[in-house]
Amino acid sequence: MQVDVHLGARAYPILIEAGLLAKPQKWIDFIHGKHAVIVTNTTVAPLYLAALQKNIVQHHKKIITVVLEDGEAYKTGTSLMQILDAMLAAKCDRKTTVIALGGGVIGDVAGLAAALYMRGVTLIQIPTTLLSQVDSSVGGKTAINHPLGKNMIGAFHQPIAVLIDPDTLTTLPKRELRCGLAEMIKHGAALDAPYFEWMQNNTKAILELDLSALATGIAESCRLKAGVVERDERESGERALLNFGHTFAHAIEVGAGYGTWFHGEAVAAGMVIAAQLSSAVTGCPSEVGQKIQALLAEAHLPLTPPKMSFDRWYELMSLDKKNNAGKIHFVLLESLGVSRIQAVERETLQQSMQGFTVSV
Amino acid sequence: MQVDVHLGARAYPILIEAGLLAKPQKWIDFIHGKHAVIVTNTTVAPLYLAALQKNIVQHHKKIITVVLEDGEAYKTGTSLMQILDAMLAAKCDRKTTVIALGGGVIGDVAGLAAALYMRGVTLIQIPTTLLSQVDSSVGGKTAINHPLGKNMIGAFHQPIAVLIDPDTLTTLPKRELRCGLAEMIKHGAALDAPYFEWMQNNTKAILELDLSALATGIAESCRLKAGVVERDERESGERALLNFGHTFAHAIEVGAGYGTWFHGEAVAAGMVIAAQLSSAVTGCPSEVGQKIQALLAEAHLPLTPPKMSFDRWYELMSLDKKNNAGKIHFVLLESLGVSRIQAVERETLQQSMQGFTVSV
Repeated sequence: MQVDVHLGARAYPILIEAGLLAKPQKWIDFIHGKHAVIVTNTTVAPLYLAALQKNIVQHHKKIITVVLEDGEAYKTGTSLMQILDAMLAAKCDRKTTVIALGGGVIGDVAGLAAALYMRGVTLIQIPTTLLSQVDSSVGGKTAINHPLGKNMIGAFHQPIAVLIDPDTLTTLPKRELRCGLAEMIKHGAALDAPYFEWMQNNTKAILELDLSALATGIAESCRLKAGVVERDERESGERALLNFGHTFAHAIEVGAGYGTWFHGEAVAAGMVIAAQLSSAVTGCPSEVGQKIQALLAEAHLPLTPPKMSFDRWYELMSLDKKNNAGKIHFVLLESLGVSRIQAVERETLQQSMQGFTVSV
Repeated sequence: MQVDVHLGARAYPILIEAGLLAKPQKWIDFIHGKHAVIVTNTTVAPLYLAALQKNIVQHHKKIITVVLEDGEAYKTGTSLMQILDAMLAAKCDRKTTVIALGGGVIGDVAGLAAALYMRGVTLIQIPTTLLSQVDSSVGGKTAINHPLGKNMIGAFHQPIAVLIDPDTLTTLPKRELRCGLAEMIKHGAALDAPYFEWMQNNTKAILELDLSALATGIAESCRLKAGVVERDERESGERALLNFGHTFAHAIEVGAGYGTWFHGEAVAAGMVIAAQLSSAVTGCPSEVGQKIQALLAEAHLPLTPPKMSFDRWYELMSLDKKNNAGKIHFVLLESLGVSRIQAVERETLQQSMQGFTVSV
């Protein structure tokens, strides 16, 4: 399957196919220049690195490999500099291709390195987790975290291709598979009611790694995301709808300490709070929130955030990138599959969040 | 005077006017959002910061000020993080405007911070040196240095406006004024023979800070540079011609240690070597090189690079961003005002550079 992201001079294909990594003839031409820099992590490297290197070396490329530690805690300036240092030491030129082999953290850090090296080189995303296959590898967002907030330092840098091999999900820990499901459920809930219903019928198959259901779901999520990105590449409007649940999720991740909650888990609990806030602000029917909770529960995702005081929630959310003129902005549902962005007053928020906060 | 840079959705004006900084009504509308982050250095701050702050505060903006140490040695990741840390600590949002008040180093580092903060915020360039007024503040290049090479980490991020007040040149050390002249001479030599002749007739007036000659020269350099940037924003071709003399210059700066040679001085000596190489490779008449040397001499710029072995020159130049497929590429003159990019073999280069190298 192929999904195209139509972005004019920056257009690119997303190739989705079981066994794709073993078929270099399908993607070798995307590797420009004579240097290929593979960025991966200590978990993914033993599984897929050697085969990828072999398939590239055959085509007379010089390979530089950077293996980062695994986890959100390594989505830092230090990791970014590790990649850039290696590229400079190897005298990589402007035609170099950076290949991100791994999940969302690898895609974001390697993507930012590609954006910054000599002011931008070619990037190929090879996402190996469900979350990165359905969401983070598409759309060109790259970033690192800062102690004061997630994804605060970054760039938009579109890849030249996204290569998705659902076979890589067979080695993925179940906890991470569930995190990918959270983003798929998000796509349905915020953007497309029929896809939400499809997810209601196929979540079990995806949890059981049914390759046909996986490929269909991945392609549908990529198609939805590509459409949003095509209409609003730099997130001046509609694209922010993809952040449904994320304002709360980022607060959960930072509040609990990076890595304690996985991103997809935080998004799941964040969507539960966001659905409740939606009912209070937009009048979204409470059944919508119940349907979302039921589907998240079927995917074995957490429905309840860690307990924090409201002041702490507010402080953590006040740094969110969607904010404007000092007000916290949220993605709210109007109904299933229909969402909008809206500023919410502190009092309204506090009232709606009562079930999720503790007094200090 | 106003020069417009036509870049579609990223178009912007360059305003050139003596006393411009004291006339906020001409530029206050470019400051978006409620936060303005002024980035400057310890030399410029005592001269222009207080007045600028006063003019902005009047318009109900919250100001964050970051004062870096002065000099190329501070064009580093550390300075970049200092700006980003301050912005995060002040909870700057996506509508924040970063104002670069200073020379090329400030413009490059502050510009990169604006490019990366929340994946990009508004940037205003207020160049206060002749070099940054005629060259580096226009075109959207931002960068920091790396121990292994100059400007190796960066981004393209166009400003929303460039504000040039030639009055700021009255406080500029003469050595820096001469560095700006080097880039003006470069514009004429590589791109525009009539402008080169104008420089032959006006270098003395510029050295004497004749405000009319300064404004005319600044506007003409900006116009030439804007034209090149409009035709090739991301430097896939023609824009690289602006790097005449720069392959050698970067080697001089790194070889001598950042800050020992000023950038404009290194460009001057670099142009002398590049003109000689041009004669050998393109058959550019040797009188062209002589004319360039004579004009550089009139501007009291150095004509002779520091002595280094050829191997050291070659090593330093082999990291240049114009390189491709392992070959060093140079901007070479075909005649006065006409240049092209060409790979040069190591042997040809070594022979042409004999007068500038020492044996080890």
